[in-house]
Amino acid sequence: MALAWLLNQGGNSVRLWEYDPEDYGRLVSERANPSRLRSFRLPDEIELYDDADAAIANTDLVVLATPAQHLRSVLNSLKTELHPTGGVINVAKGIEINSLQGMSEVICRTTGISPERVATLSGPSHAEEVVEGMPTAVVAASVSAAFASEVQRTFSIGKFRVYASTDITGVEIGGSLKNIIAIAAGIADGLGLGDNTKGAIMTRGLAEMTRLGVALGAEPETFAGLSGVGDLITTCISQHSRNRHVGERIGQGESLDDILSEMAMVAEGVETTRSGRELARKHDVEMPITVEVHHVLFEGKLPSEAVTELLGRELKAEIWR
Amino acid sequence: MALAWLLNQGGNSVRLWEYDPEDYGRLVSERANPSRLRSFRLPDEIELYDDADAAIANTDLVVLATPAQHLRSVLNSLKTELHPTGGVINVAKGIEINSLQGMSEVICRTTGISPERVATLSGPSHAEEVVEGMPTAVVAASVSAAFASEVQRTFSIGKFRVYASTDITGVEIGGSLKNIIAIAAGIADGLGLGDNTKGAIMTRGLAEMTRLGVALGAEPETFAGLSGVGDLITTCISQHSRNRHVGERIGQGESLDDILSEMAMVAEGVETTRSGRELARKHDVEMPITVEVHHVLFEGKLPSEAVTELLGRELKAEIWR
Repeated sequence: MALAWLLNQGGNSVRLWEYDPEDYGRLVSERANPSRLRSFRLPDEIELYDDADAAIANTDLVVLATPAQHLRSVLNSLKTELHPTGGVINVAKGIEINSLQGMSEVICRTTGISPERVATLSGPSHAEEVVEGMPTAVVAASVSAAFASEVQRTFSIGKFRVYASTDITGVEIGGSLKNIIAIAAGIADGLGLGDNTKGAIMTRGLAEMTRLGVALGAEPETFAGLSGVGDLITTCISQHSRNRHVGERIGQGESLDDILSEMAMVAEGVETTRSGRELARKHDVEMPITVEVHHVLFEGKLPSEAVTELLGRELKAEIWR
Repeated sequence: MALAWLLNQGGNSVRLWEYDPEDYGRLVSERANPSRLRSFRLPDEIELYDDADAAIANTDLVVLATPAQHLRSVLNSLKTELHPTGGVINVAKGIEINSLQGMSEVICRTTGISPERVATLSGPSHAEEVVEGMPTAVVAASVSAAFASEVQRTFSIGKFRVYASTDITGVEIGGSLKNIIAIAAGIADGLGLGDNTKGAIMTRGLAEMTRLGVALGAEPETFAGLSGVGDLITTCISQHSRNRHVGERIGQGESLDDILSEMAMVAEGVETTRSGRELARKHDVEMPITVEVHHVLFEGKLPSEAVTELLGRELKAEIWR
């Protein structure tokens, strides 16, 4: 919804497809969805669709904001070919379980669209703040520098500022793995630990995100950028973040099932913890925080024990690979 | 005080020198200094000194926590030679105005001690949380890997965890410049901007810290570590941070003079904004956030105009050097 609003602000003709019938009904009648964006009203010019095939027909650009684990099935369920003249932009953050593919790879493999026309837009950009017009900076990444620049120009509207990158692997891995670290930071919050601990977790978290990214062919510099450290910071400090929130409640002693059953929207980090851990194993990359979050979420380890374990690791030089 | 407490916890014999006569008197009578560390009481075993020469006589290690702009005069005022058998550890964060030297350079040049026996200990470590026993991770840096390891072993006590580095330039530059970015983040807070903006400022801030550091011979990886991004995060999110606090009040429209006159302790970032800007000029490094903070603090620019200026910069690729 926030990107539909943004593109409309930029003078584009925008269609919005809503998957959930109930949410679609409310959008049609009230032009709003308070469970997602409180007190936000969709501009009248944005056309609403409950049929994905109708929504994508004869479009220039298609923006996909489908949760990571559902993207493939949504694309496979299309009756018509996804064939925008301009290209496809993914904004979901996650790694598919089992296939261990990033979102742009899922898009290319499922639809046959060339990687040269696929981009991922990522960075510190809570939707709540975007629609309030708060200054926001993100990165548009595509293997094609030309397409990244096109996306940069299209989405740079008002106080929403877009940088360009050709390291789509790094941008996708950064945006995805940061949700695992946000759960860890939330666990520290839930345990009542302080800013020193949180700063340490985020720093060591950034290091392990970078290690895995580099093993997958990403540029290390990308992790020092908006879709790495920037998104990590905003997610870990924000009250808006669902992933940090899940961690906080876990730290306070609640069970994952109870927490997830109460949440209206997906906390991508929970599933990303599974796929991130698998990737770490497959590529033999040391990711101690991801491993401990996995222990806590899925193997019944006490959060306080996980933190103790992280601290008890043997003293090392700061940089290791 | 926090490090005196820590070293005492580690079973070391500790002396504490207090410069300010009033604070010294209170330490002697109450074993406390509530204006610095609320409700903290210094262990009885720590010996108090108001005479620096007496405090440093026949010591193994000397820890210097003198504010950056006063370190040289304090060292010059010693009547006896600073000559600990072990070495000297600096924990101040700043760059001397005029000389543009970092703290370890000031120490070596003033005392004649070999750089091989000088280290800087830096990272996300608010004293308030250290004395509460919160898990904290920092980095000990020295041009000598052996001395960095010594300091690492000495200071790794309980939940205070030390990593080692030989990039003392990077560690000092990171710890110093992050205070400028914390002022910028505070300004955003004071203007009522959100987490997206803060994440963007911190990310672009990290990039300019890194650019200057690399121009001065530091390793870029250091800025992805505890004394770079780690300290940056903790400082920018913390209610304990004096630098963020100065920025917040500036953002709310107060004048720098009024704010500083009310503060009991030094906000190093104010002076570091001057020296950081000079270094940027001297080495021809682009540091837009530092320049804007300088405009706001010392040249009467409105905070809101500075933010607009930063956002109005031409669109670029994310990584530039």
